[in-house]
Amino acid sequence: MGHRLADASTPARLAAPDEGIGRDELALATRNHGLPLEALRYDVTPPGLHYLLTHYDIPYVPDGTPWPLTVGGRVRRALQLDLAELRARPQVTTRVTMECAGNGRALLAPRPVSQPWLVEAVGTAEWTGVPLRLLLAEAGVQPEAVDVVFTGADHGVERGVEQDYQRSLPVEVAMGTEPEVLVAYAMNGAPLLPQHGHPLRLIVPGWYGMAQVKWLREITVTDAPFTGFQQAVAYRLRQDSADEGRPVTRIEPRALLIPPGFPDFMSRSRVLRPGPVTLEGRAWSGRAPLARAEVSTDAGRTWHEAELEPDGGRRWAWRRWHLEWTATPGEHVLSARATDAEGHTQPLEQHWNRGGFTNNLVQRVPVLCLEPGDTD
Amino acid sequence: MGHRLADASTPARLAAPDEGIGRDELALATRNHGLPLEALRYDVTPPGLHYLLTHYDIPYVPDGTPWPLTVGGRVRRALQLDLAELRARPQVTTRVTMECAGNGRALLAPRPVSQPWLVEAVGTAEWTGVPLRLLLAEAGVQPEAVDVVFTGADHGVERGVEQDYQRSLPVEVAMGTEPEVLVAYAMNGAPLLPQHGHPLRLIVPGWYGMAQVKWLREITVTDAPFTGFQQAVAYRLRQDSADEGRPVTRIEPRALLIPPGFPDFMSRSRVLRPGPVTLEGRAWSGRAPLARAEVSTDAGRTWHEAELEPDGGRRWAWRRWHLEWTATPGEHVLSARATDAEGHTQPLEQHWNRGGFTNNLVQRVPVLCLEPGDTD
Repeated sequence: MGHRLADASTPARLAAPDEGIGRDELALATRNHGLPLEALRYDVTPPGLHYLLTHYDIPYVPDGTPWPLTVGGRVRRALQLDLAELRARPQVTTRVTMECAGNGRALLAPRPVSQPWLVEAVGTAEWTGVPLRLLLAEAGVQPEAVDVVFTGADHGVERGVEQDYQRSLPVEVAMGTEPEVLVAYAMNGAPLLPQHGHPLRLIVPGWYGMAQVKWLREITVTDAPFTGFQQAVAYRLRQDSADEGRPVTRIEPRALLIPPGFPDFMSRSRVLRPGPVTLEGRAWSGRAPLARAEVSTDAGRTWHEAELEPDGGRRWAWRRWHLEWTATPGEHVLSARATDAEGHTQPLEQHWNRGGFTNNLVQRVPVLCLEPGDTD
Repeated sequence: MGHRLADASTPARLAAPDEGIGRDELALATRNHGLPLEALRYDVTPPGLHYLLTHYDIPYVPDGTPWPLTVGGRVRRALQLDLAELRARPQVTTRVTMECAGNGRALLAPRPVSQPWLVEAVGTAEWTGVPLRLLLAEAGVQPEAVDVVFTGADHGVERGVEQDYQRSLPVEVAMGTEPEVLVAYAMNGAPLLPQHGHPLRLIVPGWYGMAQVKWLREITVTDAPFTGFQQAVAYRLRQDSADEGRPVTRIEPRALLIPPGFPDFMSRSRVLRPGPVTLEGRAWSGRAPLARAEVSTDAGRTWHEAELEPDGGRRWAWRRWHLEWTATPGEHVLSARATDAEGHTQPLEQHWNRGGFTNNLVQRVPVLCLEPGDTD
């Protein structure tokens, strides 16, 4: 007998057909949260409305705690930089739409049991920091470098593996400019909030959230591919557990509606009165610049191209779109669909994988349009 | 046939035994959120970590939107005040621990189907605003006054009733000083965030969240008891639907632990290594000043009094407590329990009601303490 670390975790599993959300999934859903979809109105998401996923605990780092960031491994000259030294280096601010790789998971059938997102795991912020490529150039990356590994301060156990959260990027991505990766110390012009990585985090524009290592402490250049848990076990697109899978990387295209009308408290279904309605929302893609947003008011049978606002030079941020519609009494299912310049778009039928990642199935927003004059 | 408002809502119901959390409850859980319990470390909850429950949509109120607050009804002189006029009046700042009346609902059996909180629907903030009693005195409350009704700008439908969110207080509570009710325009020294009621909200220290009307637009003194939906239908303690019930008012005592050790990602169960551990957390009561916090490390069989920090003159804020413990290998269930000066405390067996309100059942925190030397 004995009490071992492996006892703390249960194996990955799929929910049975019609199995409701369990206590474990609920415990994640009550502490993490998505963007309330009416907040798609804001160009930059207000504090506290940006989606949030924390694997373990949010580390407690009171202001003034020393936070030496190390840059080491296969470099000519290892660095150790404190926050003042980072802030003294060249600074870049980038507006970034970030999305959880597990967004849409709870809509899959069968449902992989993990954080149960519907469609709301997204947000947009302006991140300020030092370009990672400048830090790596300063340290001098050796020619045999393959990956750059990022280690956070958040500590936990996952499927029996005790770990600090760690992810890597291929060295050419880490040193690239499309996107330009940041070591960020500010969000929307203020120091990072505790839950967003205070005091330092990685920002990889266009990539899903798992790459954006929070509470960043160490940057390590390696001469072999990184095989840590979050890289080689989690965040891979697999059809079954024997499948080696492909890594999750850049954000698939998605469009979301600002839900029109007003909601029912419990069902969250939407109520409208008949007449003209501006259907509007946001669309984004991390894979290529956005090309098109379309809207359907008949559950995806027919589509109408929406007016897409220009990106204003902000390649990595969502874009607003809108389309005029006249609501008629009855039940309608509204949808929006994004397509990028490389032709990536959103499916009407689910693309399933065992981890429940990158599910950008077209959103369905049921609305009830009342008869004229129905006031109660 | 026809499409009527009543079609938007489904009746209140209880979950069947072993029925998992449904899509409707999940839709609420992904947009509202609790306090991640490790954030109990902060005296004042950082932005975005305070619990949040929005009945309908968060109203979109860009800075600079005119926001005339009216004070009317049974008063000698109706008032209309803009934000600058409110800020020019006497200002009070109060630290308040706020909790949702539905906190603990998802732990009840049978489970009332609504926002499925476990224990985390709480947070503490410093609210700044004008004492309501000064505004009411300025308007001159008539002798026949009974209730004061507060109307927010959030609009939706609930059990077939279309409404702006409205709640009332008895006139003697509205004009009282224990607690002193505020019309608040700042949270933690900054303008209110959109989701916390920007630009104005009510703060009723010691009362559950349903009383703290957000996006406050109108204050109306009435000469008859207010019978709006949120007062007479929702937020009542009933045993069955025929029961008239008692109103939900002040916050019952509760203590919560900062979960010790580190978590498993999926189960959220806690892992510790053997040896000394400081068990710590927060405790509060809206009913009377706090008298005692106790800790159990054996699933509630035996209790030990924890050291409770002084309240520092902050009657309406939670208080920190701690107790030293030596963890031994094995599984343990940790609990904490608050008792106030009037003897109100927390039950070990559930006190059920149909709405799932005021469930302050003692928290259970299962921990796994590893064998010495277990590092993987």
